[in-house]
Amino acid sequence: MATIEDVARSAGLSRTTVSRVINDHPYVSIAKKKKVKEAMEELGYVPNSAARSLRNQRTGMIAVLIPRVMNPFFSQLIETLELAAAESFYQLIICQTQYSAKKELTYLNLLKTKQVDGVILTSAENDWSAIEGFTEYGPVILCNEFDERANVPMIYMDQQEAGYKATRHLIEQGHRKIAYCCGRFRSNVASAREEGFMMALHEAGLAFDEQYAFREAITSSDGTEIFRSIRGDSGRPTAIFTGSDEVAAGIVSEALRHGWSIPRDLAVTGFDNQVITELMNPRITTVEQPVREMALKTMEVLLERIRNRQYTGTERHQFSMKLIVRESTHMQAELAGIQ
Amino acid sequence: MATIEDVARSAGLSRTTVSRVINDHPYVSIAKKKKVKEAMEELGYVPNSAARSLRNQRTGMIAVLIPRVMNPFFSQLIETLELAAAESFYQLIICQTQYSAKKELTYLNLLKTKQVDGVILTSAENDWSAIEGFTEYGPVILCNEFDERANVPMIYMDQQEAGYKATRHLIEQGHRKIAYCCGRFRSNVASAREEGFMMALHEAGLAFDEQYAFREAITSSDGTEIFRSIRGDSGRPTAIFTGSDEVAAGIVSEALRHGWSIPRDLAVTGFDNQVITELMNPRITTVEQPVREMALKTMEVLLERIRNRQYTGTERHQFSMKLIVRESTHMQAELAGIQ
Repeated sequence: MATIEDVARSAGLSRTTVSRVINDHPYVSIAKKKKVKEAMEELGYVPNSAARSLRNQRTGMIAVLIPRVMNPFFSQLIETLELAAAESFYQLIICQTQYSAKKELTYLNLLKTKQVDGVILTSAENDWSAIEGFTEYGPVILCNEFDERANVPMIYMDQQEAGYKATRHLIEQGHRKIAYCCGRFRSNVASAREEGFMMALHEAGLAFDEQYAFREAITSSDGTEIFRSIRGDSGRPTAIFTGSDEVAAGIVSEALRHGWSIPRDLAVTGFDNQVITELMNPRITTVEQPVREMALKTMEVLLERIRNRQYTGTERHQFSMKLIVRESTHMQAELAGIQ
Repeated sequence: MATIEDVARSAGLSRTTVSRVINDHPYVSIAKKKKVKEAMEELGYVPNSAARSLRNQRTGMIAVLIPRVMNPFFSQLIETLELAAAESFYQLIICQTQYSAKKELTYLNLLKTKQVDGVILTSAENDWSAIEGFTEYGPVILCNEFDERANVPMIYMDQQEAGYKATRHLIEQGHRKIAYCCGRFRSNVASAREEGFMMALHEAGLAFDEQYAFREAITSSDGTEIFRSIRGDSGRPTAIFTGSDEVAAGIVSEALRHGWSIPRDLAVTGFDNQVITELMNPRITTVEQPVREMALKTMEVLLERIRNRQYTGTERHQFSMKLIVRESTHMQAELAGIQ
């Protein structure tokens, strides 16, 4: 088993420098950090967390609260968060809240019981007033989620812009009746997105028909159901905005099975740019979120807050989305070279 | 903040019984366990892990090593493992090995440094000889993975049966030239699957053409590439066995774009029964793994080993697969009522 001395020797640096890198001490040059990390990996050296914990009272653990790992958006987020955490010798604890407010509080308690050094909340199920108390024990960072009242860092995408741009694109394609789907209408994320959707309609002087609002659409089966519920209507929408690629794929798949032509008979937009959008034929227009960038910023801010023992104080990092236009909304998408 | 006494009062049980439930003590009736858990949830009581740890030297943490959370098979496995762990007040630490043998050892070290009570290995990157030493410090369970030499519990699906049955199905459809795709040919999982594939060919007196073995096919883009590489061949296969729904979907999607008819021009089987197989048109024939059942058995065995402090000793639980026949291999699949 390699020791810290072995690492120092192999890296050609002092034991103190190695120790500083391990304890995520500031003021160590990037070049030295790299040398130490390479030597550690080479020798298979693993910092003793118990010892580290005694020295600086840290656990080396970070809890990430997500609704479900099976949601591709969140699994992609975790992937990047985990890699960024490993860089600084932190391990992630993934906690599935399953959209339960009670489970969320149970996991937030990991901060209080000193089992983790920080918490990343990707989707808040409780009111901020119920969460706020935990910031006494360590940093809580909102990533993807945001809340006007939260006095902690928030890293999120401009959801209003996403709702607005995708809808404006549909209007530009000539659509006047547009349906709206979202997954969880009580969340701040969904409501900002809906604001953008409504803003685009309003700007174009279009009315929204509440009959075509589907606010609990999460899976591809939900998409199938939505298609079935509108297909017989004479005054049905000619386009659908969705908050999920799976829902969009479910709608497209079912419409094709009924002999509809997409986008001629129905235009559909997805959300998240998952693999499925490129596999469907026609390919699905979607919103690309800067998942990687948001994950890296979240980890950077969290580690800084842990290091400085600064648990409260607002800090906002808003990221922009990208609309990827494909054949499900634009007949000439490929020919026109739009991507 | 609720105390253990509050829980006892609310459940109408003694403090000792509550404590036994929290510490996962055997010999507590299921009815009492249920009462205590309900009271704990009702009151928002969270067992203090530090205190629990002092008493029984446990951390309440379990590490699950997976290649990548973004692989839907593994995210589905995690989902069930996490729910089963939470039932017994255990938290999961998800560790992404990214198929790196070094990272795997780093994470196995969590056992040695007493940061977790047990490890679930879903895909072993190291030889068993390199892993074995860690069983001195706590239980290591193989789930999905298996190794003839491992002296620990193994919970896995019969991969040979899966390879055999899917291939036999293709042969029954009249195919004589069948291509083979797998993701990682060095793993025991993949080699057992390939044995089954070869067994079915051999049984039917068919030869395998190594030119049509694709042993690093993981993503849908790999599927696209595979289609492109065979489409011009005059002696090309008429069917493809794949070890991944994404690869199968990539092949099908690209073939359709080239005007091919599936399964008439090419039959394709997937693996894992992911959502995408039902969204594609034609729907994709696939192998359904008993993910939920394997996850529950894994957690049951692991908790038992933690409780009894029994870290070595083989124990095998083999599960069976189910072939789901759909339109990508069987033209009349829907009409014939095969599902």
